[in-house]
Amino acid sequence: MDAQRKAEIISAQKPFQAYYPDHLAHCYGCGRLNEHGHHLKSYWDGDETVAWFTPEPYHIAIPGYVYGGLIASLIDCHGTGSAAAYAYRAADRRMDDDGRPLRFLTASLHVDYLKPTPLGVELALRGRAEEIKGRKVIVAIELSARGEVCARGRVVAVQVPDQYIVDLVYHPSD
Amino acid sequence: MDAQRKAEIISAQKPFQAYYPDHLAHCYGCGRLNEHGHHLKSYWDGDETVAWFTPEPYHIAIPGYVYGGLIASLIDCHGTGSAAAYAYRAADRRMDDDGRPLRFLTASLHVDYLKPTPLGVELALRGRAEEIKGRKVIVAIELSARGEVCARGRVVAVQVPDQYIVDLVYHPSD
Repeated sequence: MDAQRKAEIISAQKPFQAYYPDHLAHCYGCGRLNEHGHHLKSYWDGDETVAWFTPEPYHIAIPGYVYGGLIASLIDCHGTGSAAAYAYRAADRRMDDDGRPLRFLTASLHVDYLKPTPLGVELALRGRAEEIKGRKVIVAIELSARGEVCARGRVVAVQVPDQYIVDLVYHPSD
Repeated sequence: MDAQRKAEIISAQKPFQAYYPDHLAHCYGCGRLNEHGHHLKSYWDGDETVAWFTPEPYHIAIPGYVYGGLIASLIDCHGTGSAAAYAYRAADRRMDDDGRPLRFLTASLHVDYLKPTPLGVELALRGRAEEIKGRKVIVAIELSARGEVCARGRVVAVQVPDQYIVDLVYHPSD
């Protein structure tokens, strides 16, 4: 994707993560309130979802290449963010409406590492809904560097009641 | 596992990662030379492999729980480390012998998130070889907190020539 299209997307939309309530905004991967974290931001690009991330110099697998855990983390967070966005869109709703909130957690994550992912360049993530059914949304994600797909991921996200998350955060059982 | 067994294991063995050459010792997840990283260390426990890790307070998914990307990262690094250890053992070799080195990269990673993983306690990873065949080793991994399994992972690791990694590190094509 060229830089102009990216600039258009970022200037025209708020990222999905901006709509998360505070109790969902601490994630190390994508939470706006986590001062140590990656702050991944996901957007619509037509019927697909996109995000960009430039790893730090120390996010190394072997010198010059990105470690697999970061790639998995980016795919996970872009996946759950995309799942929520697809669910709102499928319900013909806005993410900031006053209806019952749609919250998703990762049930499973799969990553195929196709080639070493170079460090020092911006990575692009592109998501596409494979399935939106009941409480489950499956998002397929490609992670690219310099236009080449380096990893493919698949996130199975499951909708949970907002109260479930609020209870975990504010009233843990142990 | 009780603390005494852990102490026995750690005092009797060097971790698998201690045998990695310098060009494989920079990984953010498990490299001894990465000053920012997690420094995961993996050991034998009979026919299984074990590792322990206590997340930082900011490794949050939602407050009080570990973010999925870290869990994926720990499973990935424990998986590739275990794969190499299993391959040496299957060949009846020591990891520090003078033979042709056995190096593994992750081909694919799968994680099932079974329940929210609590933050603030030590996590235990336990690996078991599902398959050791040709250049491929598959390691199944359970991640537990307070004795409860919170995530299950599966790492497909593929052996690559050491020269392949040396070339990537020292002679990248781009």
